[in-house]
Amino acid sequence: MKTIITNATIITVNSQNEVIHNGALGFTDQVLTYIGPTPTEPELAGYDEVIDGTNKWIMPGLVNTHGHVGMSLLRGFADDLPLQQWLEDKMWPMEAQFTAEHVKWGTSLSIIEMIRTGTTTFVDMYDHMGEVAKLVADTGIRGSLCRGMIGFGTEEQRQQKLAEATAFVREWNNQADGRITTMMAPHAPYTCSPEFIAQIVEKSAELQVPMHIHMSETRFEVEQNVRDYGVRPVAHLENIGVFARPTLVAHAVHLTDEEIEILAKYDVKVSHNVVSNLKLASGVARVPEMLAKGVSVSLGTDSSASNNNLNLFEELKLAATIHKGVTYNPIAVPAEEALRMATIYGADCVFQANQIGSLEIGKQADFIMLDANQAHFHPANNPISHIVYAANGRDVTDTVVAGKFLMRDRQLQTIDEERAIHEADRLFQQLSY
Amino acid sequence: MKTIITNATIITVNSQNEVIHNGALGFTDQVLTYIGPTPTEPELAGYDEVIDGTNKWIMPGLVNTHGHVGMSLLRGFADDLPLQQWLEDKMWPMEAQFTAEHVKWGTSLSIIEMIRTGTTTFVDMYDHMGEVAKLVADTGIRGSLCRGMIGFGTEEQRQQKLAEATAFVREWNNQADGRITTMMAPHAPYTCSPEFIAQIVEKSAELQVPMHIHMSETRFEVEQNVRDYGVRPVAHLENIGVFARPTLVAHAVHLTDEEIEILAKYDVKVSHNVVSNLKLASGVARVPEMLAKGVSVSLGTDSSASNNNLNLFEELKLAATIHKGVTYNPIAVPAEEALRMATIYGADCVFQANQIGSLEIGKQADFIMLDANQAHFHPANNPISHIVYAANGRDVTDTVVAGKFLMRDRQLQTIDEERAIHEADRLFQQLSY
Repeated sequence: MKTIITNATIITVNSQNEVIHNGALGFTDQVLTYIGPTPTEPELAGYDEVIDGTNKWIMPGLVNTHGHVGMSLLRGFADDLPLQQWLEDKMWPMEAQFTAEHVKWGTSLSIIEMIRTGTTTFVDMYDHMGEVAKLVADTGIRGSLCRGMIGFGTEEQRQQKLAEATAFVREWNNQADGRITTMMAPHAPYTCSPEFIAQIVEKSAELQVPMHIHMSETRFEVEQNVRDYGVRPVAHLENIGVFARPTLVAHAVHLTDEEIEILAKYDVKVSHNVVSNLKLASGVARVPEMLAKGVSVSLGTDSSASNNNLNLFEELKLAATIHKGVTYNPIAVPAEEALRMATIYGADCVFQANQIGSLEIGKQADFIMLDANQAHFHPANNPISHIVYAANGRDVTDTVVAGKFLMRDRQLQTIDEERAIHEADRLFQQLSY
Repeated sequence: MKTIITNATIITVNSQNEVIHNGALGFTDQVLTYIGPTPTEPELAGYDEVIDGTNKWIMPGLVNTHGHVGMSLLRGFADDLPLQQWLEDKMWPMEAQFTAEHVKWGTSLSIIEMIRTGTTTFVDMYDHMGEVAKLVADTGIRGSLCRGMIGFGTEEQRQQKLAEATAFVREWNNQADGRITTMMAPHAPYTCSPEFIAQIVEKSAELQVPMHIHMSETRFEVEQNVRDYGVRPVAHLENIGVFARPTLVAHAVHLTDEEIEILAKYDVKVSHNVVSNLKLASGVARVPEMLAKGVSVSLGTDSSASNNNLNLFEELKLAATIHKGVTYNPIAVPAEEALRMATIYGADCVFQANQIGSLEIGKQADFIMLDANQAHFHPANNPISHIVYAANGRDVTDTVVAGKFLMRDRQLQTIDEERAIHEADRLFQQLSY
């Protein structure tokens, strides 16, 4: 199937951040085959479908590099609390009641929202991951998934989790035409012993998949790490051997200069969860310093329980503005760099920069279309500025993954929103709190 | 004309932040006449129109307490620059070319965006204000408007501006059924001499309208004030007598404890422009401290040139999250307080808290309706949390001011978006830069 979208503005996010006006984007099945000026009528004859993209901006789909999508079932359940209290008194007692069914419908809410707001790839660290993988397979979105392992409890419980995580990788890695990839994920240095993390590292090497872990989200956690292990979390994870594996860390809010150097040295990838870090009063990560040292920094929403949505356009704008404000540097994280964080750096953080994250021939046809014919996108001036500073996820009209429309003209194609709303409400009301 | 909307969730923002489930909101012409449970069928017979509000949240329209709506014509023209350079090298040379026509179509873009994203009242400080007033009158939105006066140039030019500002107040104050109010607005302490500001204060007393002024937006400006006048801006404006008048200051980013005390003492109103302050690298205002001292703090977008949109839901969420993050206090600005900043405190900041800002019988029927039947608003749990943390302006389906629908089922009723886009693009392209 050869498809082409014509007469659109193409924001490529290639190495030159090229923008093509009156452009066209062609794809054959899953793969991008044409990016350039709109072809002539005779040239268009070779396509099976020609879609008029007048007044549309086409850009790479966003990559959300950290979250817990099942937790959308807890949206709005507990706000305005410190992270440890929020986790221990609110989230964990509710999550203890979760079955596969809760994760299924929480994840359904999340996938719907991500498709609607232009995310085409997401990272998920949670439990009952088979449900998440099945939904990724069925809805057509792309996911880098891992069974998160909290190391509390008995040795038997830990080994059970490790066995589940291992089985999940074996069952799902590179499934659904490669849309599903997997990682191995100890929850955090403060919830997993060094020995348990080391076991997981070993398994990740054996399975040949990357590592994903929360790190240095709060000051409290960093202080506790120093108390418990004598070193800050970065040195701690380095010592355990985590960074010898390809690794994506979430948060990385509290870092010293030396810790940034270590992350750069090992090419550790970072998911910047700016909204969640503000809402949970964790702080503001040192993103300009990380970028300056060459660390690959991407954007994550974290869960709907600490955000409280999965609209990555919010992170995109905030990544471009907050670091200016808190460092008094008006060129900290320019618009183009924020856009790269949301797209190509996100692809790099899920170790797929050769497949997704920019619109270039040979890559997967993962892209979104925005309605440019709206007052807040005019004067028609600078599309990258408008996408970063003026847009919102709700400007997305079409979401395409691997050449398949998951949303077309704002209509979801692969998932039933009414059903998901109904089931999520029903399950939430049955929880005890 | 008696209208009632039934079966909705009413977020009143009254003194108890009451939320009414399965509620109804009735209004006769411009005024709210019923807020309570959905009446029985016989009781509904007394209404001329009964609108089914199933799956809708109804809340007060948002109040945007600082902006320059004509500047939407410069959206995306200059980003990622320090405030003084952005103003002096980019904004002012472009604005010097502005005619009434530029302001008319820039303002049109802005009013369209505000109606679409749920703002029912806005403050505007700009030039060619007759154009803005005419558009407010014609489109049905509510505006608190002032001719901004930059004191550079000759004495003749300053007196010309003061005469224009005075004439504008005389012509437009309390026009359009009271939807238009006016203020007197010296631009800032760093652009107006104390003598000029004093003249404007005197005129504001004579005309019996409030004062509006930028204050303490950047560290640079505070330092300059100390250099030039020996005191920081708050003492400076106090000394000139500004605060003897009802006053709304915009920004107030850089304040000492003593300055916050002075603002509280005079009941000076503050417009917190959190997105603009981040984007221009100005800093983060001390909002929790101001609120703790009883200062009335509301939300403003500033202009589309420094934001770059007028979607006040972004300021609402950021007001509720950023102060938590930068002060490490997870209860700084709870959701309910942020919602009050966007509504009833906004009404107070434009000196109309007895008329707008909450849904209470006798107040103006200024309200918005949101589509609650969307995945990101579920589980159906806590509407205030969802409005503050999960919503976006594009969730607004209906915008009503003084009982008149300006948008209904997402269709604009009083202004032509296609025309505004066309004219704004045309005018922008003709500017020299």
